[in-house]
Amino acid sequence: MSDTPNILEANGARLWQSIMRSGEIGPGRSSGLCRLALTDSDKEMRDLFVRWCEQADLRVTVDRVGNIFARRPGRDENLAPVLIGSHLDTQAAGGKYDGILGVLAGLEVMRVLNERGIETRRSIEVVNWTNEEGARFAPPMAASAAFAGGLDLDTVLNLKDDDGAVFGAELERIGYAGEAAVGGREIDSYFELHIEQGPLLEAEGIDLGIVTGGYQTVGMNIDIHGTCAHSGPTPMDKRRNALVGAALLIVAANEIGWRHHPDEGKSTAPRFTCWPNKTGILPDYAQVSIDFRSPSGEITARMLSEFEAAIPDCARRGNVDIEIVQRWTFGSEVFDPNCIDTVKATADALAVPYREILSQAGHDAYNMAKICPTALLFSPCREGITHNEAEHIELDYTLPSVNVLLNAAVTRANR
Amino acid sequence: MSDTPNILEANGARLWQSIMRSGEIGPGRSSGLCRLALTDSDKEMRDLFVRWCEQADLRVTVDRVGNIFARRPGRDENLAPVLIGSHLDTQAAGGKYDGILGVLAGLEVMRVLNERGIETRRSIEVVNWTNEEGARFAPPMAASAAFAGGLDLDTVLNLKDDDGAVFGAELERIGYAGEAAVGGREIDSYFELHIEQGPLLEAEGIDLGIVTGGYQTVGMNIDIHGTCAHSGPTPMDKRRNALVGAALLIVAANEIGWRHHPDEGKSTAPRFTCWPNKTGILPDYAQVSIDFRSPSGEITARMLSEFEAAIPDCARRGNVDIEIVQRWTFGSEVFDPNCIDTVKATADALAVPYREILSQAGHDAYNMAKICPTALLFSPCREGITHNEAEHIELDYTLPSVNVLLNAAVTRANR
Repeated sequence: MSDTPNILEANGARLWQSIMRSGEIGPGRSSGLCRLALTDSDKEMRDLFVRWCEQADLRVTVDRVGNIFARRPGRDENLAPVLIGSHLDTQAAGGKYDGILGVLAGLEVMRVLNERGIETRRSIEVVNWTNEEGARFAPPMAASAAFAGGLDLDTVLNLKDDDGAVFGAELERIGYAGEAAVGGREIDSYFELHIEQGPLLEAEGIDLGIVTGGYQTVGMNIDIHGTCAHSGPTPMDKRRNALVGAALLIVAANEIGWRHHPDEGKSTAPRFTCWPNKTGILPDYAQVSIDFRSPSGEITARMLSEFEAAIPDCARRGNVDIEIVQRWTFGSEVFDPNCIDTVKATADALAVPYREILSQAGHDAYNMAKICPTALLFSPCREGITHNEAEHIELDYTLPSVNVLLNAAVTRANR
Repeated sequence: MSDTPNILEANGARLWQSIMRSGEIGPGRSSGLCRLALTDSDKEMRDLFVRWCEQADLRVTVDRVGNIFARRPGRDENLAPVLIGSHLDTQAAGGKYDGILGVLAGLEVMRVLNERGIETRRSIEVVNWTNEEGARFAPPMAASAAFAGGLDLDTVLNLKDDDGAVFGAELERIGYAGEAAVGGREIDSYFELHIEQGPLLEAEGIDLGIVTGGYQTVGMNIDIHGTCAHSGPTPMDKRRNALVGAALLIVAANEIGWRHHPDEGKSTAPRFTCWPNKTGILPDYAQVSIDFRSPSGEITARMLSEFEAAIPDCARRGNVDIEIVQRWTFGSEVFDPNCIDTVKATADALAVPYREILSQAGHDAYNMAKICPTALLFSPCREGITHNEAEHIELDYTLPSVNVLLNAAVTRANR
């Protein structure tokens, strides 16, 4: 074996075949996927991924929140490993590439190293993080957060989906409640390749985005409390309809998003529950999720404070009680200058044009950036359409970023 | 047996005991009931009601939509019967009296006639209508509508609840898919006693309301179509969030309700669904139920037209497509002057003070008024609180209306 490879090349056809095979597991309603975390289709995909890893002679371990690590030992097993990965779960109406590309590109790195007989100094591991999407169990990125110490084990294992199913029990059910400790070990570095989920790279004809930071995001779950009463006789001034209070909040958040649209500000209300939510009765409870994002921490903070100022007015107009019950932030994480330099140098060596870019979505890389040098790479996706079954990429504009990932990770593993 | 009774008196203690026994079946989260149609607790209550009817020597039949009729034969079985009834199902956070009073007061009528050995000219039947609330299977009052020819049998049997359970299958499951034809037989008259579900009778200290008409109500289900997209990168002007469109509609309806509040106008948004309704993805579908009510057909029509005029603006502001997919109206039904006169004369004879009143809620009596002479009687309820577990009545101010029901129904049955 040699540890001084020249430039390595991924096998695009092989990678694409793996992605297409993944694209058959957990079909959505049209052309995409509905492969929610810890469902039967997630299990089917995990089983296939583990089989592929074992066929590549990788050592597979699963931790207690179901994260799968497949290790290709380096020359010095005592050195901290380089991790490459992303997630295999999807949204309820998701595409075939979001997350999946990053995991299977990591596997392709291993396959290339195997067939070239290349030994690296450090071990390399490809990782599939559990429940990145948060589509089934909120919050998103829960298992990488646990790995990075941002969420404790019990919190994650006790998350419930909308039907009351429990994360830990579902993990047992599908056979991925592993025995490995969650995190707590030294990681040399983490590399994640992901589709951009925005339109910039495609529009500019650039095949690689090197993420230098994230959109500053603040999110919250808000409880709205009213009073059950009859839809008929109750006069307007006696009504305390939680659904009306929630609607007022959603409209207020939407207006704030538009107000900051010129500065790329965005507001989102993706999720809503209501009880009893039946004809004939005013609901006494609702919960809505709302978040605000912008490229600037200052603008995001301004959106948040405008929204907080609007809450009392919504409560008054809806005659309800409103309480923020959970808050989260992401996007202020810092990616590692050394890793970014390695990626840039690799791109230059491969003559792959790149641009620096901000991430507008959350990624497992945000959690990893808190505990180890991390780089996040973007490849183009058509029209920036994502979290939609129409999500689409082409191999020809994806392969350059895979080759940068491959060579940058190997460079790092030989450091 | 005699057919010329003097004034008859209900056994208040016995009636109350039956109501309290019913109040133990299908407990809610606090002091009320959650006895949704065709659930196990509805079955338990039905079984008890049937047992009570059989103990009173009534002939029980069940029709194909699960309506239960318990007949006390009259002297001339060829004459059309007098019906007395209401419903035993409740809201998800319902009280112990809404509907239940009317059915068990009907049963009390039978018990009084039995113990007094009174024979009537016409048969009398007490009826429990299936799924009056519509809390589980929309629309409300579906089974009395089927009886009165307003909905066809297949439509009712194929109604689905929010979890996809089918009306007909649930009816089979609990053993109440009867063999009797639905409606299609001559009914002499229908009497329904119901709690007011408004504050007027209690406030005025009057124990009987004689309903002369209903609030004019128009309701609709509205579909909102957007596009699934990522909560993060999608810029505001590309977003088509169905949840935002729905919130705009709810706020617009609420404002219209307030605008007509001085004329007792009301708008209601009781119910809302959304898909995928998950963190991280803009929902592409929502449905909201909205209705408008007022004492005047003209004002209700004005509210409706204001709302219809607001829809295109909501669609534009939310960048979504909006479509009214189902409409309903009620409240324009006319109660029978002869039946009302009988009730008034009875109240006078019993020295029970009464007032004329409008119903603000829907009732099975609305459906029956379309096919036979119908009277709807109200008794007071505390503070008008209803469709809330805190719903409350007292025997002392309820018994007068029960006695009016008893004597008026017997008068009618001897006609």
